[in-house]
Amino acid sequence: MSTHPLGAVTLVDTTLRDGMSSVSHQFTPENVAAIAAGLDRAGVKTIEVAHGIGLGASSIQYGFAAATDPDYVRAAVDAVENADIAALYVPGIATLPELGKAIDAGIKTVRVAVHCTEADCGQQPIEWAKEQGLTVMTFLMMSHKLEPDALAEQAVKLDSYGADVVYVVDSAGAMVPAQAAARVAALRSAIDADLGFHAHNNLGVGIANALAAADNGATFIDGSLRGLGASAGNAQTEVLAAAFDRAGWQTDVDLFELIDTAEHIVAPLMKEPQIVDETALVLGYAGVYSTFFHPTKRAAKKFGVPTRDILLELGKRGVIGGQEDMIIDVASELAGRTYETPAVAAV
Amino acid sequence: MSTHPLGAVTLVDTTLRDGMSSVSHQFTPENVAAIAAGLDRAGVKTIEVAHGIGLGASSIQYGFAAATDPDYVRAAVDAVENADIAALYVPGIATLPELGKAIDAGIKTVRVAVHCTEADCGQQPIEWAKEQGLTVMTFLMMSHKLEPDALAEQAVKLDSYGADVVYVVDSAGAMVPAQAAARVAALRSAIDADLGFHAHNNLGVGIANALAAADNGATFIDGSLRGLGASAGNAQTEVLAAAFDRAGWQTDVDLFELIDTAEHIVAPLMKEPQIVDETALVLGYAGVYSTFFHPTKRAAKKFGVPTRDILLELGKRGVIGGQEDMIIDVASELAGRTYETPAVAAV
Repeated sequence: MSTHPLGAVTLVDTTLRDGMSSVSHQFTPENVAAIAAGLDRAGVKTIEVAHGIGLGASSIQYGFAAATDPDYVRAAVDAVENADIAALYVPGIATLPELGKAIDAGIKTVRVAVHCTEADCGQQPIEWAKEQGLTVMTFLMMSHKLEPDALAEQAVKLDSYGADVVYVVDSAGAMVPAQAAARVAALRSAIDADLGFHAHNNLGVGIANALAAADNGATFIDGSLRGLGASAGNAQTEVLAAAFDRAGWQTDVDLFELIDTAEHIVAPLMKEPQIVDETALVLGYAGVYSTFFHPTKRAAKKFGVPTRDILLELGKRGVIGGQEDMIIDVASELAGRTYETPAVAAV
Repeated sequence: MSTHPLGAVTLVDTTLRDGMSSVSHQFTPENVAAIAAGLDRAGVKTIEVAHGIGLGASSIQYGFAAATDPDYVRAAVDAVENADIAALYVPGIATLPELGKAIDAGIKTVRVAVHCTEADCGQQPIEWAKEQGLTVMTFLMMSHKLEPDALAEQAVKLDSYGADVVYVVDSAGAMVPAQAAARVAALRSAIDADLGFHAHNNLGVGIANALAAADNGATFIDGSLRGLGASAGNAQTEVLAAAFDRAGWQTDVDLFELIDTAEHIVAPLMKEPQIVDETALVLGYAGVYSTFFHPTKRAAKKFGVPTRDILLELGKRGVIGGQEDMIIDVASELAGRTYETPAVAAV
């Protein structure tokens, strides 16, 4: 049973967490403060911050961030008047002591993200976070890899651990609206907790997947300003606000404050636009985890093989987050193969 | 009754027509040949070319193109083996003699575009084009401005003139999927001709609107490589191919040929990425015709007023294509007003 009034959804912004992947985790605490303040002025109630892969991920494997997780949290907490600041917790990367430090720095919400078949891994951090008084949102990552009923079984576990919100997370941007709708509907039938949807835009349908999720009972909808995020990026927060409005939903955010923050604060900090290029599209088409985007591009260059071939093979092998070493394995295996150079315009 | 087998749709590409708006109509005939050849290799059956506003639009009002319409048509015709080349005909801008020259240059299809309340204006060119043996697709532009039943009444007229395909055209990118679905469904109940859908991406749902249109009976789906097109651009052809595939549709195109053409031929020719920025988003939100995008930006600069205020006012006044002079009227009227400078990050 949703805690929301009928026809209302809550937009959650992850510009400062998932969006970190688009700037190699190099937003400064000053950047974080400016963007968080803009989101807060727009009425966004939950703002996720820190390293793109979550607490504790700043490392040689996932890339070093420009500041520590607690420093990012403090910068955001100090910048907002009303919003809750949230952090991402991926079991196996984050640890409870790191979560403790984020709580000390001021987070009120934690988002515990598990691979969609591994809800069990969420039990310890969810229960611990509830004991600390946090709001606990949970992520079933790579949800496209499970059929709706099987996904709902995993959601039942997260619900039983005390999750306040269970998200269907399209980590690969691999779903089309009917598939998003079916998964959210299955969860809606199975549990009472609030539901959420986190979209990536690899197939160009991130916003529409979020609309389809809301039509089927999701009330927490993730987005990021200018679509910042891993690979093709997330559903674009300011566009979500406009599209949900036009579809008859109440979002309680100020569209024009969101646009101002996107246009005048976020855009000037972007290294490159968030578009669906070859790598982003093939990643979604193959159903590969979004954070494999940059490592795959690097491996393709290193081994002289097309990124598309690596991604299609990773998709076939069904790799998931944490199996980043497979990128190099696949690239080196493919390195002996020939590849027909694509046609290039003589113009 | 559709001429398509169940579960199949035909992708129509407009990179070289609507996409011309993104490059100020400056693709050269050599560019056109290279892109058309790539689309043809990918199996695209209909390729629309020439000035962004259609035949006869190369002018001081709509911008001068780099070549004449017949030259563009010939460049494309000579470059393809299987595809039909199409041209856009907007009554009031194009004339029958210009259509005659395009036929002489080799077009096999004409797309006659009328404002959604003015189907009558299509009768003369549709009937004349059918007499010349062309395939005739027709556009109900700005379809968001009519409720489904009223739109279907206009479609009945186009059908009666002999149109082979009637398109619901979301010229402002103002629809969400449920609205696209309702309009296509109403047309499906009203006429026997094939149906099409032409999306703009201002609300981020172009691809999804096309999917919703197909679910409700549209079998011709417009797109453009890299999303090139007026304001936020069109549904991105290569992404359409991937998303329709993942949604279970048969498109008969080669996804990877499309990606190669987008990535290696189109992308290097683009001046700027096709994104949903403030102007594109507000244009869709306000429901303003996409080709007002650049003139509105210019007017905003000239009169020192925010583009968003001009667009919102144009939306309120319900302006349509052909009323471009209203942009200046509105901008000059607003010029006396004050505007609060949006917050800018001190970073």
